[in-house]
Amino acid sequence: MASFLSIFTMRNLFVLSLALNLSLIMRVFYEGEKHVPHGFSAQKADSGLEKEAHATQRTLVSLSSSGQDDGEKLIINLDHGDPTMYESYWQQMGEKTTVVIPGWQSMSYFSDVKNPCWFLEPEFAKQVVRLHNLVGNAVTEGRQIVVGTGSSQLFLAALYALAPKDASEPISVISAAPFYSSYPSMTDYLKSGLYKWAGDALSFDKEGPYIELVTSPNNPDGFVRHSMVNRTGGILVHDLAYYWPQYTPISSAADHDLTLFTVSKATGHAGTRIGWALVKDPEVAKKMIKFIELSTIGVSRDSQLRAARILEVMTNSSQNPGRLESGESFFKISYHLMAERWQLLREAVNRGRFFSLPDFQQGFCQFLNQVSQPQPAFAWLKCEDDGVEDCESLLRGHKILTRGGRSFGVGPKYVRVSMLDRDHNFNLFLKRLASIQT
Amino acid sequence: MASFLSIFTMRNLFVLSLALNLSLIMRVFYEGEKHVPHGFSAQKADSGLEKEAHATQRTLVSLSSSGQDDGEKLIINLDHGDPTMYESYWQQMGEKTTVVIPGWQSMSYFSDVKNPCWFLEPEFAKQVVRLHNLVGNAVTEGRQIVVGTGSSQLFLAALYALAPKDASEPISVISAAPFYSSYPSMTDYLKSGLYKWAGDALSFDKEGPYIELVTSPNNPDGFVRHSMVNRTGGILVHDLAYYWPQYTPISSAADHDLTLFTVSKATGHAGTRIGWALVKDPEVAKKMIKFIELSTIGVSRDSQLRAARILEVMTNSSQNPGRLESGESFFKISYHLMAERWQLLREAVNRGRFFSLPDFQQGFCQFLNQVSQPQPAFAWLKCEDDGVEDCESLLRGHKILTRGGRSFGVGPKYVRVSMLDRDHNFNLFLKRLASIQT
Repeated sequence: MASFLSIFTMRNLFVLSLALNLSLIMRVFYEGEKHVPHGFSAQKADSGLEKEAHATQRTLVSLSSSGQDDGEKLIINLDHGDPTMYESYWQQMGEKTTVVIPGWQSMSYFSDVKNPCWFLEPEFAKQVVRLHNLVGNAVTEGRQIVVGTGSSQLFLAALYALAPKDASEPISVISAAPFYSSYPSMTDYLKSGLYKWAGDALSFDKEGPYIELVTSPNNPDGFVRHSMVNRTGGILVHDLAYYWPQYTPISSAADHDLTLFTVSKATGHAGTRIGWALVKDPEVAKKMIKFIELSTIGVSRDSQLRAARILEVMTNSSQNPGRLESGESFFKISYHLMAERWQLLREAVNRGRFFSLPDFQQGFCQFLNQVSQPQPAFAWLKCEDDGVEDCESLLRGHKILTRGGRSFGVGPKYVRVSMLDRDHNFNLFLKRLASIQT
Repeated sequence: MASFLSIFTMRNLFVLSLALNLSLIMRVFYEGEKHVPHGFSAQKADSGLEKEAHATQRTLVSLSSSGQDDGEKLIINLDHGDPTMYESYWQQMGEKTTVVIPGWQSMSYFSDVKNPCWFLEPEFAKQVVRLHNLVGNAVTEGRQIVVGTGSSQLFLAALYALAPKDASEPISVISAAPFYSSYPSMTDYLKSGLYKWAGDALSFDKEGPYIELVTSPNNPDGFVRHSMVNRTGGILVHDLAYYWPQYTPISSAADHDLTLFTVSKATGHAGTRIGWALVKDPEVAKKMIKFIELSTIGVSRDSQLRAARILEVMTNSSQNPGRLESGESFFKISYHLMAERWQLLREAVNRGRFFSLPDFQQGFCQFLNQVSQPQPAFAWLKCEDDGVEDCESLLRGHKILTRGGRSFGVGPKYVRVSMLDRDHNFNLFLKRLASIQT
C-alpha cells in the first residue's frame, strides 16, 4: 500500500503540476491572443464576426507599424455571456475545488437507481439543496431536482414536459420582450408539433393554453420580472439563472412550479454544462427526465461531480458568520466585483450623452442582510444618439462585439453587453466606450 | 512552492483515498444490493420492472428463511447495455487514467475558437484520430470531428443536419429490423416537422428522399450491415458504436459520409456521455454543430478531457508490437473476455433446445492480424420453445430483465441481452439460463 501510494503521489503530482502549468500557459496565451470568435446562437452575427476578424487581420500590419498599444487591435467579444471573470476567484481558491476522478469511477449510465432522476448524482443534488438553503433564493422542499446538460437542455425538457401530447396544434411559447435571444430559435429549430414560439408576451392575444417564460432577473435587461399574461391555461417556466446575490437582491425564496438554474452563471463554470431544475409536479419531472433520456441518455457524471465540488466550496466559503467580511466568500467577492464594474461602466456612460443604461431600484438582500443594488450580468446599453440607428454595428466598428436589440425582440438602438469577461477585456471595453463619446 | 506542494499532496491524497474507498465501498454495495432498476428508453418495461421489484420484495422473507443463495434473489438487469464489465480493466490500469481538473480550468464555453466545432477539446480530437489510426476502423482524414453528449445527441444532430429545411413534409427515417429500439422514439418524440420515423427499411416503399440508419455491427443482433435500400435520394448515417476489435473483426477502415462512435461502447465509460461523429461534408458538420449549440450550448469540457485521457491510455496500451501478447492491451483483454463470455453463453444455450443464438461468420481482423469471431455486446436470444410466445416475460419470471423483440421491430420470441454487465451478474445469468432448460 505504501509503495502504491508513493507511486500514486508522484505520478499524480506530476499530472497535477502539468495541469497547473498548462492552465497558466493557456491563460497567458488566451489573454494575449487575438480573439477571433466563433459564435453560438448567433449565426447572424457570425458572418459579421468573420468579416470583422478578416478585416482586423488585414489591418494588423499598419496598426503594428504605427506603434499603437497592442490592446487596440483586439476584438473584444462581449456577445456571449462567457463568465470568465470568475476564473481569478477560483484560482485564488487553489486546490480546494480540484477534482480527481480515477479511470474506473462513474462508468455506469446510472447515478442513482433509486431516484426517478436516475442520472442525478446524489452529491450534486445534496450541494444544490445546501446552496439554496444558504442563499435563500429558492425553495427546494417538495421538489424533484432534475439535472441537465446546462439549463438549455432543461428549458427544452420543460417545453416537452408541459406541452400537451395530443393537442390539435402546438402550444404557444411566449416571453415578454426584450427576451433571451435564444428562446425563439431553441423553441422552433426542430419545427416541433408540440410547441411553437409565439413571440412577445405583451402582445400575445391568442386564446387557449400557452407557456410563458419568465426570466428574472431578465436577460438581457436585468429587471426583476413576473408573469405578464396571467390568463387561464397559462403555464409558467421560471428561468432564474441570474437570481444570485452578486447580480440582484435576494428578496425571497422563489417558490414556483418549475424553476431553472445553471452552474455557468452561478459559479462561472460554463464549460462544465450543468444546470438544474426544481420541479413541483412529479409527473412533469418524469417527462423532463424522459426528455433527457431520449436526447442524451442522462447527464455527464464527471461534470456533476465537478459541479458538486464547486458548489460545496462556494457554500462553505460564504456560510461563515459575518460573511460579507470574509475574505474568501464567493458571493461577497463577486458582489463587490460586479459593483465595481457597474460603477465604472456608469461613469464611462455618464461622461457623455451618447449611451444610456437602465436605472434599477435597490432592494433589501436577505442573503447579504443589507440593501443591495441590481448589477446584472449583462449591460443593456442604448445608443441615444439620433444619428445612430444600429448600436451593434457602431460598437463593432470599435471592435466591440455585442448582441443587437433585434435578437431580443426590440429595436437596434439597444445592445446587450456581457459584464462577465476577464478584467483585461472589460477595461478595454470601458476605454473604447469612453473614446466613442469624445 | 514547496509548502504549497506539500499541502496539495496531503489534501489531494486525502481526496484520492476517499474516492478510492468510496468507489470500493460502492462497488461492494452495488454488487450486493437488490437491483431495483430504473430504465431509460424502456418506459414500457418500467412498469413491469416496478411490479417485479415489489413482487421480489414481497417474496424476500420466504426466500431468506428457506436459506437459498443470496444471488437467487437478485434481479439481474440486462435490459440496458450498461458496460460495467470494463470497470475491472480500468481498475487494473490504476492511476494512469486518473484525471485531475483544477477549479479554474475549462470555465469558458469555448474549447477552440479556431475550430468550426468551437466546443471540441483539441486533445480529445487528437486522441480520437490516434485511436482510429491505430485500430484502422475509420478514415479520419478530410473529416470534421463533431463531439456530442453521447452518440444519441449526434444521432439527433445528424437528423437535423440532413433533413431539408423547407420540405413540404418531414423526411422519412428508416432502419432495417431488428433496429436499435430507441430510433423510433428518438426520431418522433418532439413530433418534428423535419423528420419522421418510417419504420423497417426492408418494407420501405415511399418515393422521395429518406435517411437510412445503418448500425454495424447491428444493435440488437450483432450482424455486419450495409445499406438495405440504396435508392436515389437516400442519405446514410452509419452508427458504428460497436465497430471495435473486441466485438467484431475490423475488416477495413469505414469511409462513409457520416459516422457515429461513442465512448461508452468503446471504453465502457457510459457515465461520461461523450460520442463523436466523423463528417465528410463541412456544411453538414456545421448544421450538426448548430444543433448542439441550440440543444446544450456545446459539450462538457471536463468529460472531453477525461475521455481524451482514457482514449490515450487505451491507444498506448494496444500499440506495442505484438500487442496480442501484451498484458495490458485493452483490446486484447476485452477481446478475450468477450470470447470467453460468448463461449460460456453458447455452452449454456446448447445444453438444451429451449433457446437459440445467431450464428456468425468469422473474419480476418486487420487490427488483431488474425481471424476473429464476432462476439457482440448484446446476445440476440430466441425462445425456440413452442409454448413460449413472449421470451421477455419468461426471463423476467426468472429475474432476468431483457428487452423484447417488439421494441426492435420484430416478434416477442426474441430478446436482447446485455453481454457487458459485471462478472457476478453475467454468471448468475448463465446459471439461471441453464436452470430454465433443465
